[in-house]
Amino acid sequence: MPVGLKAPVSLDPVAGVRVATAALGGRSKPRDDLTLFELAPGTSCAATFTRNAFRAAPVTVAREHLARTAPRYLLVNAGNANAGTGARGIEDARRCCAIVAEAAGVPVESVVPFSTGVIGEPLSVDRFEHAIPVAVGRLNEAGWLDAAAANATTDIVPKGASRSVELGGRTAAVTGVAKGSGMIRPDMATMLAFIATDAAVAPDELRSMAGDAVEASFNRITVDGDTSTNDACVVVATGALGNAPVRPGSADWLALSEAVDDVARELAHAIVRDGEGATKFVTVQVEEGSSRSECLAVAYTVAHSPLVKTALYASDANWGRILAAAGRAGVADLDLSRLRIWLNGVCIVRGGGRDADYTEAAGAEAVSRDEIVIRIALGRGQVTDRVWTCDFSHQYVTINAEYRT
Amino acid sequence: MPVGLKAPVSLDPVAGVRVATAALGGRSKPRDDLTLFELAPGTSCAATFTRNAFRAAPVTVAREHLARTAPRYLLVNAGNANAGTGARGIEDARRCCAIVAEAAGVPVESVVPFSTGVIGEPLSVDRFEHAIPVAVGRLNEAGWLDAAAANATTDIVPKGASRSVELGGRTAAVTGVAKGSGMIRPDMATMLAFIATDAAVAPDELRSMAGDAVEASFNRITVDGDTSTNDACVVVATGALGNAPVRPGSADWLALSEAVDDVARELAHAIVRDGEGATKFVTVQVEEGSSRSECLAVAYTVAHSPLVKTALYASDANWGRILAAAGRAGVADLDLSRLRIWLNGVCIVRGGGRDADYTEAAGAEAVSRDEIVIRIALGRGQVTDRVWTCDFSHQYVTINAEYRT
Repeated sequence: MPVGLKAPVSLDPVAGVRVATAALGGRSKPRDDLTLFELAPGTSCAATFTRNAFRAAPVTVAREHLARTAPRYLLVNAGNANAGTGARGIEDARRCCAIVAEAAGVPVESVVPFSTGVIGEPLSVDRFEHAIPVAVGRLNEAGWLDAAAANATTDIVPKGASRSVELGGRTAAVTGVAKGSGMIRPDMATMLAFIATDAAVAPDELRSMAGDAVEASFNRITVDGDTSTNDACVVVATGALGNAPVRPGSADWLALSEAVDDVARELAHAIVRDGEGATKFVTVQVEEGSSRSECLAVAYTVAHSPLVKTALYASDANWGRILAAAGRAGVADLDLSRLRIWLNGVCIVRGGGRDADYTEAAGAEAVSRDEIVIRIALGRGQVTDRVWTCDFSHQYVTINAEYRT
Repeated sequence: MPVGLKAPVSLDPVAGVRVATAALGGRSKPRDDLTLFELAPGTSCAATFTRNAFRAAPVTVAREHLARTAPRYLLVNAGNANAGTGARGIEDARRCCAIVAEAAGVPVESVVPFSTGVIGEPLSVDRFEHAIPVAVGRLNEAGWLDAAAANATTDIVPKGASRSVELGGRTAAVTGVAKGSGMIRPDMATMLAFIATDAAVAPDELRSMAGDAVEASFNRITVDGDTSTNDACVVVATGALGNAPVRPGSADWLALSEAVDDVARELAHAIVRDGEGATKFVTVQVEEGSSRSECLAVAYTVAHSPLVKTALYASDANWGRILAAAGRAGVADLDLSRLRIWLNGVCIVRGGGRDADYTEAAGAEAVSRDEIVIRIALGRGQVTDRVWTCDFSHQYVTINAEYRT
């Protein structure tokens, strides 16, 4: 029951990127679950990975390969995370890269692996032996929609977004796909997201642009507070547009950054809207903080509170739970008398307690909507920040109690 | 569906403490929901309160009164937390104390108020005007069982425990009651717990004994990670036994400390066993840490993970989720190759992944039980610590989606 989210009906091709999907096989309902991205020679790449201490095997191998050379192929499989698989997992991830390298005629280090799915099961590498050559044979510029669908695990809706931007008289494309629905509390990047542009951006400068985009999108969402072992976000710039490299500070930089930010935020929101069991899309905005870190501490504590999330699920304007969560966020010397809280514009807390003008009817109306904005003003400073999350439903428990069994 | 928890059938009286309950009225199913404890003159008292920045009005008033004089009466109401109620809440809490003071003929500062229940509703003080004199008239040494029942909100089972201990030829009693089921992640003390002994202990020394007991019991449990605005634990020693004051380091001190620790731990476990929607009682023990703080960081991260908790609810030995949660606990340089994890004695993770001897059948058998011990060895040092929690069920969502409505 995704909240206000529809599958993309088209995604713009990005010159310099070809995409294909194939089926690894063995599913009860057959579907493509392997994706291969081919990047033109000379493509800049910025990749960010999970900060979970127990990184999955493909994350370790991806970092090794990216440290050695520019990537030419990104290989993604959905259904098996190849995490908690020890030395064999590392060997398996390398072997999958080698299969692509052989089929495509490139060095193994230019192939970067990504996996998402169940933790702790060994990969069936023989299935990759079969599927990878199929994918190589299908590579084409129009494969983005298929990639959005093939990356899904518990996702209900495929996630993709496109923007176009004028750069010196040429129209650059920015297209991205993402997957993610549970184990979502990115500490660096979300489950898996791939964003490409055909504009030219130098690698170091692309890292800066991608870092800002990730910080304002995937690093501001949470479904259940659980940071995955496999999170990764990759932003690439192929340069196939033929533009002069976009430099920081220029008008083109601002335009391209805005397009990349938009795509990243749309994908991040899509992950929350398709959060496991979600029935509401919730923005928790904390204002008047004295620092970004205290705004985020309060925002995440509210966004992670099971009591707040179940109240939202019930369309219950239970502001006492919001107050209690804000109060336990670890921010020193919070002053209740300065605190104000609004639910979709209705002031519910002011002057140390329930706002004098508040009515249960107004609160009930505000919280009955599918899209909820919780604004919390701390009265301590001028910093604002926000996170996006969803509610906590019976369906969340059902999905996660039944995922493996 | 409390896990292995039965209501106490008897609780030992404590000389020097009289207890009574009464009904505030206005409930659809009439029941007693006000409790009054009377403490003999000269009773030592150690009280710990929530660290939530938005403390409830009774917490503020209780701290004020305890700072001025030794308490003679503890007044508890269940159903309304008198939290988020601003200046009026403070006045209401003081007024309730004054009603007790008038009825009992003591100064208002010697009455200490406690409230638990819904946040943000004003107290109906007129109900206290009626109920408090009734309670004063009923005070008796055998009232502990009634108090355990009267303090309940979403609790299914009343919680109480007694121990007796020989101190210099006399038999001292230690009896406690507690309430709590949701919004449980004490940062200092749990919802509400009251423990009394008739032994004599000097106030400063009682604070030390009580602090140790609270740290090892109420400060090691979590149901949902939400720290309440009203948490409080009070330990009193009346001295009515007539023993010489128990001094630190003596054999009597050790014996009495052990009895107080036992009662506190039994009450803390009872809160988790009766955790909202709980179907399993879970111990998360972290061993071989290099510090207590890193053991607790890993233990609480695992204990709060919605993915771990829903897997336990499903009796799914989904160790990948335990691994992922441990990895995101913020402990620097965790080494997956040294990590071992056991579920009820069955080793599931060793050598960087699934233990070679692990079988799904053994894991399924281990996790099918109602009492689960998750042991996590970090391979970094010699410190062990543990927290107690419960699983996360459909019933949790139902309870918290329907509590106010």
